[in-house]
Amino acid sequence: MAAEPTLMRREIGEIPATVERILDDVAEIDRAAAAIRRFRPRWVTIAARGTSDHAAVYAQYLIEHQLGIPTGLAKPSITTLYGGNLDWGGVLLLAISQSGRSPDIVSVTDAARRGGALTVAITNEDDTPLGAAAELSLRCHAGPELAVPATKTYVADLALLAAVVGTLRPETSLRAELSAMPAVLRGVEAATDAWLTRASAQLDAFVSADRALVVSRGYNLATALELSLKLKETCGLFAEPYSTADFAHGPMILAGPGVPALGIRPDGAVGRLVDQALDTIEGRGGRAIRIGGSEAGRWADALVLPGELPETLGPLAFAVAGQLLVESVARRRGLDPDAPRGLNKVTLTR
Amino acid sequence: MAAEPTLMRREIGEIPATVERILDDVAEIDRAAAAIRRFRPRWVTIAARGTSDHAAVYAQYLIEHQLGIPTGLAKPSITTLYGGNLDWGGVLLLAISQSGRSPDIVSVTDAARRGGALTVAITNEDDTPLGAAAELSLRCHAGPELAVPATKTYVADLALLAAVVGTLRPETSLRAELSAMPAVLRGVEAATDAWLTRASAQLDAFVSADRALVVSRGYNLATALELSLKLKETCGLFAEPYSTADFAHGPMILAGPGVPALGIRPDGAVGRLVDQALDTIEGRGGRAIRIGGSEAGRWADALVLPGELPETLGPLAFAVAGQLLVESVARRRGLDPDAPRGLNKVTLTR
Repeated sequence: MAAEPTLMRREIGEIPATVERILDDVAEIDRAAAAIRRFRPRWVTIAARGTSDHAAVYAQYLIEHQLGIPTGLAKPSITTLYGGNLDWGGVLLLAISQSGRSPDIVSVTDAARRGGALTVAITNEDDTPLGAAAELSLRCHAGPELAVPATKTYVADLALLAAVVGTLRPETSLRAELSAMPAVLRGVEAATDAWLTRASAQLDAFVSADRALVVSRGYNLATALELSLKLKETCGLFAEPYSTADFAHGPMILAGPGVPALGIRPDGAVGRLVDQALDTIEGRGGRAIRIGGSEAGRWADALVLPGELPETLGPLAFAVAGQLLVESVARRRGLDPDAPRGLNKVTLTR
Repeated sequence: MAAEPTLMRREIGEIPATVERILDDVAEIDRAAAAIRRFRPRWVTIAARGTSDHAAVYAQYLIEHQLGIPTGLAKPSITTLYGGNLDWGGVLLLAISQSGRSPDIVSVTDAARRGGALTVAITNEDDTPLGAAAELSLRCHAGPELAVPATKTYVADLALLAAVVGTLRPETSLRAELSAMPAVLRGVEAATDAWLTRASAQLDAFVSADRALVVSRGYNLATALELSLKLKETCGLFAEPYSTADFAHGPMILAGPGVPALGIRPDGAVGRLVDQALDTIEGRGGRAIRIGGSEAGRWADALVLPGELPETLGPLAFAVAGQLLVESVARRRGLDPDAPRGLNKVTLTR
């Protein structure tokens, strides 16, 4: 009899339906997009911690690339520790917290709203302090997330952000491509499960390692950051995430035998930069595997994802594949990915 | 006969005089401050890579806290890979590159200047592409930096940023405190040298480790990021930097026996948050040492820095002490900190 799947595995499996529910709640997305259009933000600040902060990195690429609005990530301690008084006029403040309860994120949202920012919260739970603090709320529709490592709420954050930005740019193909994502993600899940069964030896280096590298660039920098955190949380692995550019500025020295590398490799120009970084890693004796689009099929060690993976939405698919890979590595290390020793689901920081 | 000091050690020793030269070039600082005052930026974007990116993190705290202007770190690939077209109106673009030659930083500066931003470059070398691209330049006055790990140019970046911000806030004590920093830094250098001679056993855990943690919060998050990069570059050590808040959101699971931790512990509220993180680390079996202000004297394993260390300028002093500590650890690991295997001084990324 097969073992029961972990909560983490089950919750990853709920991602396609979660994205469908997000896309079905058209009214909530339209309301947020209309408020943003009326407000005409000149600047976007995003407040978030942990996994949500990686959704914020994706949001910075999406908003700067698609909307042309300069975007930055908040340093909450300016408000909570230093009593800083920012000029919030003209700013769209996005606050992302799956629990909606992190006191520092709520404080920044309060200060921004009082200071004239348009404040939009993204949460999974309803009736939260963050939802109350912000003028508008977007919900992840992911249902209760019980495993400690966040999986479905992360992809839900990405889908919500893409839905709002796509609504603000109706002349692009973003909304249409997003509508196709639930089916793409189902294909990704099936392909990854098959690969994990067939190619599990390729993960041996990660199962035995205590250090690892995760590299990508552009939109998928967010994926590298998030999968590194998942490897840390579930495996206790020192997995260092890098953009290929920052990697070249020194940290490439970390590569070597016993330090496996995971490359998130979209097709095209970004993928070729990832290849350069992985070549460097292999040249220094490290084992490298890719999660990629069709071009990655040239490498025997690649997990090649099926379906259309536009640059802007690839991070949803790469996240699902990477989460499944991490969950598998954790179990093969003899660990329970659902309840890492010493971590709680909700973290309250100030 | 004593061994020759390394280039890295000699260049750290040049930091106090470098800061003096920066403060002596009043005309350059006043010119930049006057241009910023006239421009009245609504937002600040900082473009940088590697060590310079950590000076950018310090700049975000300094500018948001002291000037109240929302600040963000640029994602250069929006411009260089995706052809994104940002609305640069009202934005002050600070570009930091010690070589002044990183193509992606030059591209962002070009785009920002064409788009209406006020562009200010911070470089160490003269006559650089970045200096030519930007409307205004600030120079580090650090002289040639020959060791691969940047030390004096990093602290020079911090001093330049503090000098400009202090000039924009003449009603604060920032400029006066900065004038005292060369003497403070000489005291820090002497105290650290003495501590390294006396207390070198306390570094044994770092000498033998392959993983480590570096934690701080607020202004000194920049210090944690930079000292982690120095430990990586000179020792090949997987040294993970965290703000105490992000550390609590999952990565605390990385703490354990064999994983030493370095806490950058300023006096006051930030220091108490660092203590909490180090308590967690010690509770999980990791060895923790502090670089701190006078309050850190309560811990036997602390390197206590002399002199006045205001929260805003402490990062200059903590950087010097930490650089000396890293240089010592590298030599005790049998490595040449001046020329890490496979790294070049100037990195050109696009």
